[in-house]
Parts: sequence; structure tokens; C-alpha cells
Amino acid sequence: MPTAALDAMPRTLHIHQRLLGKNAEIANRNRERFHARRLLTVNILSSPGSGKTALLERLLADGFAKDRVGIIVGDLATDNDARRLSRFGPRVIQVATGNICHLEASMIDEASQSLGLDGLDLLIIENVGNLVCPAGYDLGEDLRVVLVSVTEGEDKPLKYPSAFKSAHVVVISKVDLAPHLDFDRATLEANVRAVAPQAAIIAVSAKTGEGLPGWYSFLRDRRAHVVERT
Amino acid sequence: MPTAALDAMPRTLHIHQRLLGKNAEIANRNRERFHARRLLTVNILSSPGSGKTALLERLLADGFAKDRVGIIVGDLATDNDARRLSRFGPRVIQVATGNICHLEASMIDEASQSLGLDGLDLLIIENVGNLVCPAGYDLGEDLRVVLVSVTEGEDKPLKYPSAFKSAHVVVISKVDLAPHLDFDRATLEANVRAVAPQAAIIAVSAKTGEGLPGWYSFLRDRRAHVVERT
Repeated sequence: MPTAALDAMPRTLHIHQRLLGKNAEIANRNRERFHARRLLTVNILSSPGSGKTALLERLLADGFAKDRVGIIVGDLATDNDARRLSRFGPRVIQVATGNICHLEASMIDEASQSLGLDGLDLLIIENVGNLVCPAGYDLGEDLRVVLVSVTEGEDKPLKYPSAFKSAHVVVISKVDLAPHLDFDRATLEANVRAVAPQAAIIAVSAKTGEGLPGWYSFLRDRRAHVVERT
Repeated sequence: MPTAALDAMPRTLHIHQRLLGKNAEIANRNRERFHARRLLTVNILSSPGSGKTALLERLLADGFAKDRVGIIVGDLATDNDARRLSRFGPRVIQVATGNICHLEASMIDEASQSLGLDGLDLLIIENVGNLVCPAGYDLGEDLRVVLVSVTEGEDKPLKYPSAFKSAHVVVISKVDLAPHLDFDRATLEANVRAVAPQAAIIAVSAKTGEGLPGWYSFLRDRRAHVVERT
């Protein structure tokens, strides 16, 4: 639908594309730096409230040695999530983005240097809760995870295709709530496959623990690939 | 936290502010046009999957005469929501925004002219599912509603302050699910009041109908104000 505002877009897009080009450069530098340290880097995207932080709390509580995990958390405001996660003992840093609705590679460059990467196996980036903006920004990760909770509805992959198309793995969260909803998991999975045939699908509940062993195996397997390659 | 990307921001912001200035002009024109027709215009913002469409389905099913309601639905992709709503008989138009994470006043100008406003009392705009981008764009509405579901967690007003600060009313949705969650409604309401003391708070379930009479009364009351004023 053509609109007056869209007529004005090419100029913005031009600058946006230049910024994205610069972002891709920094992301590639980040990735080289992370690989030199045999780090697996994971970028987690989702809507607000899909359970990114809860999933990481479980990972720290029962999945991975806390002293081998570093976490960078992005939010517009507050350091609530960093405080929630730091109770479990890992290295955590919060990036407050103000009005920017995504993390950028340069923020990860700086945050990872502040965090310190010595002795880490796994660097997890919890992106700003947003199913649109973060999709276009490579941060230098090995693995992009899109989290979608059963409460959000089966149609989300179709309605937010850019995020899902960029995912290596789609994690369906809060499956413990499915019995209380009119939720059809087969439909959600079919919609994921339609938009993102490349993505693995893992269904979990951070509350009951359902599906978490598969999620941890997946991460350990990907970390082993990074180690082999270096 | 200063970063290389932020150094490059002022240029983008300059253009962004000019675009926002143009948006505000068009929004004011929209509002005048809507008031001349004694229309109450409502702009609904939320995360993906908070239940905007379900709330509107109930409103059409049992709250308002379908032939007095017009709906403009924004999504990046698909016309799923417009199709869901059109089963109830109102005038509906879908705006596909592509990669733009919000609706703009110019899109509402054009969409409302395509929709046709004759005979309507209520024009509802279901914005793109995003708790960040739409907050900065006045569309010419009388009433801005931010919807937040009980499954998203109590901290969302603190983490996405710009959206909540701009709200006239915060609707807490899916309250039927609260017994299955570790959800503390008093904490969510306190967080809403801390960030958005101006906002009315209404808690509803589109599934059980809880709270809907209050929501409908609120809308009817606001519509009466528009009529009085013209």
C-alpha cells in the first residue's frame, strides 16, 4: 500500500543499509574473535514475555556450569533480567538500548569486552523483546534462536516471517500451559516449517522441565562443532 | 553505553524527527476528520500474541453493533487477522507494512478512506504487534490502549516504558490463565501506575468474558465524550 511516508523511505533506507553494512562488518569481527576463543555464541530473539529469561534461568540452574556461561542482556530500560540471571552466578552484563528496539554488533563488541570472555564456553545474548527489529542485525552469533510461547498463537511465524526465516532453531516455550489454551502444536510447527524449513524445532517448559534435555543436547552438540572447527 | 553505532545515530535521528513531524501533522488532520464524523478512534498496541484480535472478536460478537464499527489491522505480513475479524461482519481493512514495525498516520489516512467511514461510531486500529516501534507514532486516535497479557510477566511496563507512558488505558488480558501462572496482578498494576499514572487499568478475559462489560462501558463513555464535543 503506497503512502506518503513510504515515499520518504528510500533516503532513510539508504542510510539504514549503510549502517547495516557496517553492522555486518563488526558482526564478522565479533564472530572471528569468539571462534578464536572456541566460544559458541547464541542470539535469542522473541516477543516480550515469551520466556527468554526463564529459559536461561533453567539453563544456569540445571544445564550448564555457570562459570562457563556469559550472558549479555538487551532491554530498552531496567536491569531486571541481568539481576534475575546474576543470582545464578554467571557473568552477566545488561545493555540498556534506550529507544533502540534491537541490539547491534557494535554493542556486543563493547559488551563482550566489558564482560570478559576468558574461560567461557557459551556466550548467550538475550536480545530486546521484539519480533521485528532484531531480525536484521547479525551480532556475530553462531546460532540464532527464536522463542515463541504457546500463548502467542500458532500464526506468529506467518505474521513475523523475517525473524523466523533467520532462525537456526525455533524453541516453543511454556508448553505446560498448552492444556489451558486452544493451542494446536501441529499447526504452529507446520507454520514454522512453511516459513523456516531450515530451523530445528524444540518444545520446552522452563517450569516443568519438559524438553530441556533435548535443548541442552542441541547446544552441547553445536558447541562441539565450534571446538572441532578451531 | 556509548557504541560506534550510536555515534552514527544523530544523522538518522534527524531524518527520523522530520518524518515524525510530518506524521504528527497527518495525525492531526486524521483526528479532525474523524471528529467531524463523531467517530471514537482507538489505537491498540501490544506485543505479538497478547490477544488484540481475540479482544476485538469478542467486541464484535457481544459488545457493539458490527455495522457501527470499522477496523484497520496492521501486520508485517498476512491478512489473517482481517479475515478472522471480517467473519463478524464489520468493515475491515488490512495494512501490510512489510518490514515496517509500526503503523503511521499516512497509512491510516489512506486506509480509512479505502474503508469508508460513513455510519461508523467506532474506528479501531489494531497496530502491528510490537511494544516498541508503534509508541512514537500518533495515528490521530482519541484513545491509545496498551494490551498486556498475564502470561507476559509483571515487569513489562518497566521494560517497555515508552508504550505504557503513552497509554490512556492499559488492558490486562487473558486473566483466565492467571491461576496457571506465578502471576501477581497487584505487582503488574503497581508497575503500570509507576510508569503510566495517567492510565486507567481494566482486566479482562476474551475467553470467559470476565471484565468485558467494564471495557465496553469505558469505550461507550469515551464515544459519548466525542459526540458531546462536536
